[in-house]
Amino acid sequence: MADAAGTFPEAVQDWLARFESALAAPAATDWSTLFTADGCWRDLLAFTWNIITLEGPAAVGAMAARQVALVAPHELTADSPALPMTDANQGWFRFRTQHARCRGQVQLRDGRAHILLTAAIELVGHEECGGPRRPDGIEHRAARGRRTWLEERQHAARTLGHTEQPYCLIVGGGQNGLMLAARLKRLNVPTLVIDAMEKPGDGWRARYRSLYLHDPIFLDHFPYLPFPDHWPLYSSRDKIADWLEIYAKAMEIDFWGGTRCTAARYDEQAGRWEVTVERGGSTLVLQPRQLVLATGLSGARYIPELPGAARFRGRQYHSADHDSAADLAGRQCVVIGSNNSAHDICVDLWEHDAKVTMVQRSPTIVVRADTMREISKDIYYAQPGADVDLADLMFAANPFRPRTAFERGFTDYLRTVDADFYRRLENSGFQLWHGEDETGFFMAYYRRAAGYYIDVGGSELICSGEISLRHGEIVEITEDGLGMADGSFLPAEVIIYATGYRPMSEWVGQLISPEVERRVGRCWGLGSGIEGDPGPWEGELRNMWKPTAQQGLWFQGGNLMQARFHSLHLALQLKARMEGLSTPVYPC
Amino acid sequence: MADAAGTFPEAVQDWLARFESALAAPAATDWSTLFTADGCWRDLLAFTWNIITLEGPAAVGAMAARQVALVAPHELTADSPALPMTDANQGWFRFRTQHARCRGQVQLRDGRAHILLTAAIELVGHEECGGPRRPDGIEHRAARGRRTWLEERQHAARTLGHTEQPYCLIVGGGQNGLMLAARLKRLNVPTLVIDAMEKPGDGWRARYRSLYLHDPIFLDHFPYLPFPDHWPLYSSRDKIADWLEIYAKAMEIDFWGGTRCTAARYDEQAGRWEVTVERGGSTLVLQPRQLVLATGLSGARYIPELPGAARFRGRQYHSADHDSAADLAGRQCVVIGSNNSAHDICVDLWEHDAKVTMVQRSPTIVVRADTMREISKDIYYAQPGADVDLADLMFAANPFRPRTAFERGFTDYLRTVDADFYRRLENSGFQLWHGEDETGFFMAYYRRAAGYYIDVGGSELICSGEISLRHGEIVEITEDGLGMADGSFLPAEVIIYATGYRPMSEWVGQLISPEVERRVGRCWGLGSGIEGDPGPWEGELRNMWKPTAQQGLWFQGGNLMQARFHSLHLALQLKARMEGLSTPVYPC
Repeated sequence: MADAAGTFPEAVQDWLARFESALAAPAATDWSTLFTADGCWRDLLAFTWNIITLEGPAAVGAMAARQVALVAPHELTADSPALPMTDANQGWFRFRTQHARCRGQVQLRDGRAHILLTAAIELVGHEECGGPRRPDGIEHRAARGRRTWLEERQHAARTLGHTEQPYCLIVGGGQNGLMLAARLKRLNVPTLVIDAMEKPGDGWRARYRSLYLHDPIFLDHFPYLPFPDHWPLYSSRDKIADWLEIYAKAMEIDFWGGTRCTAARYDEQAGRWEVTVERGGSTLVLQPRQLVLATGLSGARYIPELPGAARFRGRQYHSADHDSAADLAGRQCVVIGSNNSAHDICVDLWEHDAKVTMVQRSPTIVVRADTMREISKDIYYAQPGADVDLADLMFAANPFRPRTAFERGFTDYLRTVDADFYRRLENSGFQLWHGEDETGFFMAYYRRAAGYYIDVGGSELICSGEISLRHGEIVEITEDGLGMADGSFLPAEVIIYATGYRPMSEWVGQLISPEVERRVGRCWGLGSGIEGDPGPWEGELRNMWKPTAQQGLWFQGGNLMQARFHSLHLALQLKARMEGLSTPVYPC
Repeated sequence: MADAAGTFPEAVQDWLARFESALAAPAATDWSTLFTADGCWRDLLAFTWNIITLEGPAAVGAMAARQVALVAPHELTADSPALPMTDANQGWFRFRTQHARCRGQVQLRDGRAHILLTAAIELVGHEECGGPRRPDGIEHRAARGRRTWLEERQHAARTLGHTEQPYCLIVGGGQNGLMLAARLKRLNVPTLVIDAMEKPGDGWRARYRSLYLHDPIFLDHFPYLPFPDHWPLYSSRDKIADWLEIYAKAMEIDFWGGTRCTAARYDEQAGRWEVTVERGGSTLVLQPRQLVLATGLSGARYIPELPGAARFRGRQYHSADHDSAADLAGRQCVVIGSNNSAHDICVDLWEHDAKVTMVQRSPTIVVRADTMREISKDIYYAQPGADVDLADLMFAANPFRPRTAFERGFTDYLRTVDADFYRRLENSGFQLWHGEDETGFFMAYYRRAAGYYIDVGGSELICSGEISLRHGEIVEITEDGLGMADGSFLPAEVIIYATGYRPMSEWVGQLISPEVERRVGRCWGLGSGIEGDPGPWEGELRNMWKPTAQQGLWFQGGNLMQARFHSLHLALQLKARMEGLSTPVYPC
């Protein structure tokens, strides 16, 4: 190991020296001297060209025995001791592999790693064109036939997808598609983003009017173009929508709006996709080498089949089709569901003087937004001048296995600080839940991306009875209401189904084939073995941002924070493949 | 003075202590013990609520004797010794006045100030709504009748300029109008920007296609939303135009495109303007308290009256109307003028295979863009992670009087490093110049905003004869060419008048009245006593970003760097007046 600054923690320096020695002879190493029995090594591309957490010394040793020779880690150097998460038992380091510059973070217990994070951050020789590598823009010399910047952009618009095929096609132009496209642009990977809607941001604009981000703005930055620091802590649907439009323009993303992908077939021989798209009334076939589905965590709207629904005389629609309750004053409205959308729509209905009943069919996790806000004030992301890339690594240095235990404690904490709130909510009849294993809201997000409400005012309306509550299953819909399993009747003029979505993996079946859908399997979820997230345990989000069982098929999804962080990893994988770099994936 | 960090330069600490004592008794102070005989104190609002440079101890003493009691400077503290421009003889400090937080920088010679900069950066109690003061965006509580962010914006669009009058009206929505509006937005000053063109950026789009910024991108950042770091070093017309559009949207600037200001009258009694504007076919009267002209440094196009011009059979137009030479291949084109636009249009013509002659009527300053680029590489602005606000202060800590001497040396330097280039250019017959007093390009910009060419390839075409040169005055235009003063004839199918613009102050005469135009006087220029910039010496740019002789009338203009920096000063002055703070202007 290279000499570290004098104040770098000694125990960490010692561990790094032993780690470096182990990397020189991985098969001969007793990895239990380096990792605790429950030690986790989370690797983001650096060693495995995959996103994977190895749990325990045996798993670590097996990986190292195969991968170290293939990726050739070297130049291990302690990073600045001034970084956060540096103390007597933890610290940051940097290293290189054959093709990447990487960062690492280690957390020790009694001289052994409890957690190790390794992450590729840049490809050597294929760096992004920013900072010292920014282009000149113009040559200070007269030259006949040259194009201006605008003429270049117009030329690209005429040729890309027609005479020139994109290396990468991204289906879906929400935050995930755009952030990935921005990164690929800076890596000079020819990319086209298509979206069924006309403009970037239209996906947000199509949500209900009262939607605001639940995450504070400092978690939500897009790469390369941070939000100005006067942006509100919580942004509305429309403000984020505008930002997507701004971002696509500022980043010069090649975006086809009003374009629907109808089929995709991978041509093994040619090593490329044949993707059929409908655009402006005509059908085109695109031939990208790589196909990224960035269509969101949700698949198609899900509405349960309820007997009699067809004869209901009022309005009934899925929550995804709710914009505003402005025209529902005085109307008897029933919202089926008790997660985020259900609550938010109930509040919107109440704010517009509708009569509101929520049908809660199963217990729901609730956390108070204001409590989360108090907690988030102190995190590194929230500090003025925080380095967002570093913050993302800090957040990542927390694999899902230890995180599960942590979240149990966090749920306990919330139940203590908000004890009065939870008691009042339960007294109102609301069926409160904290997850199968009491791991609460965060794990529900990773496991099922559903099952919770971040309270921004709805719970108070439930406590005060302004929103009526009903429980149990619905057995039928009549002309003018809902028949409940307990035999009661719930009159309704409007029914809103906040009943969720089909799994995102179904897109694969629809666009490509049921065979590929089966082979690729589920997306999202950790394999935690609970309802909605069957085992086996994976330890990372399934199929997200990493190689899938279908060559050339990738998934990019998640919230703004995940979209930002993991778009880097997907972009690096795509660039490495375009350049023909060796990318030995583990496990193969 | 408060205790400074141990390593702060002793001489500077000593001077600051003496300065603080002097401020306690300004009339009793011998200011020649604090300032050298040629010492300059440049103040940006902090002491004078003006932009002014006081030259010599007597001028300093006169100002201090009047202003110190009025603005009450206090809490003088040495700033971080880690800042650039800190060494044994210079350093930064901070202080407060009655209403402002301020920064200062002093440069000593033998214990006395050769240069002192003092600058207000923030109003106490009226800070911008950024960072820790960012708004929440949403209250986490159900509430009937509340508006979403979009609904608020729509409401503002319906009312501002109609039922609600803006406090400030900005005429001109280029970079100057937009940056000022962005700052006022963060200061919660109701502001409306109007522009004759439809969209922000259209002013740039209306320039010639081959226009690129001459300043490298790190000088060009807009406040609050820095360019992504992959933006090219030199940006094209259209890319900057798009950025203006992006910026107006991201900053939520209230912008009326397609709106022409036709008249303005100040109502002394009411203390507000009556501004007549034409918008969408109808006439409105706006009643702002403050009126900012941000219409650019140039007034109307200027075309000299040449006998016979009416009978010319070819095309003739002002350089401002040149877009592209794409349809001029093979045509005999004459460009009258030898400054930036003239050269750039000549290059565009040559690139499109036109036959090009430049008529040089007077000697021209030329600097090589590539030389400027080499030099600019090392400046603080160009360093990764540079603090642009600090960089702007560093640049400002250089009043125009000492700068004039510096620029003479800089011109010498350019003539040495580019000696071969200048020799070749002169040998080609080009009449080269370095300014009346050899102060070159920069001073020409401050004095007349004209008279120079930043060479981006045109000079080489002149040296090689690809662009023909003619000299002297034009005595007449015929059906098919130009009659020159030396009796020669210059055939032409196309004549392009790169002959500049009327002074910006003429807008005042046109919009308000000739009487107010006279009273306000010239805009821009330092009063250096050369042609185009008559004395007396002012030491700062006349009327720019500071109080004028007409109450409620302000000028905001300049390049991107000036627009960014000085929009802060104008915004602070406007906000202070809106809040009714005491703003004693010196001299009164």
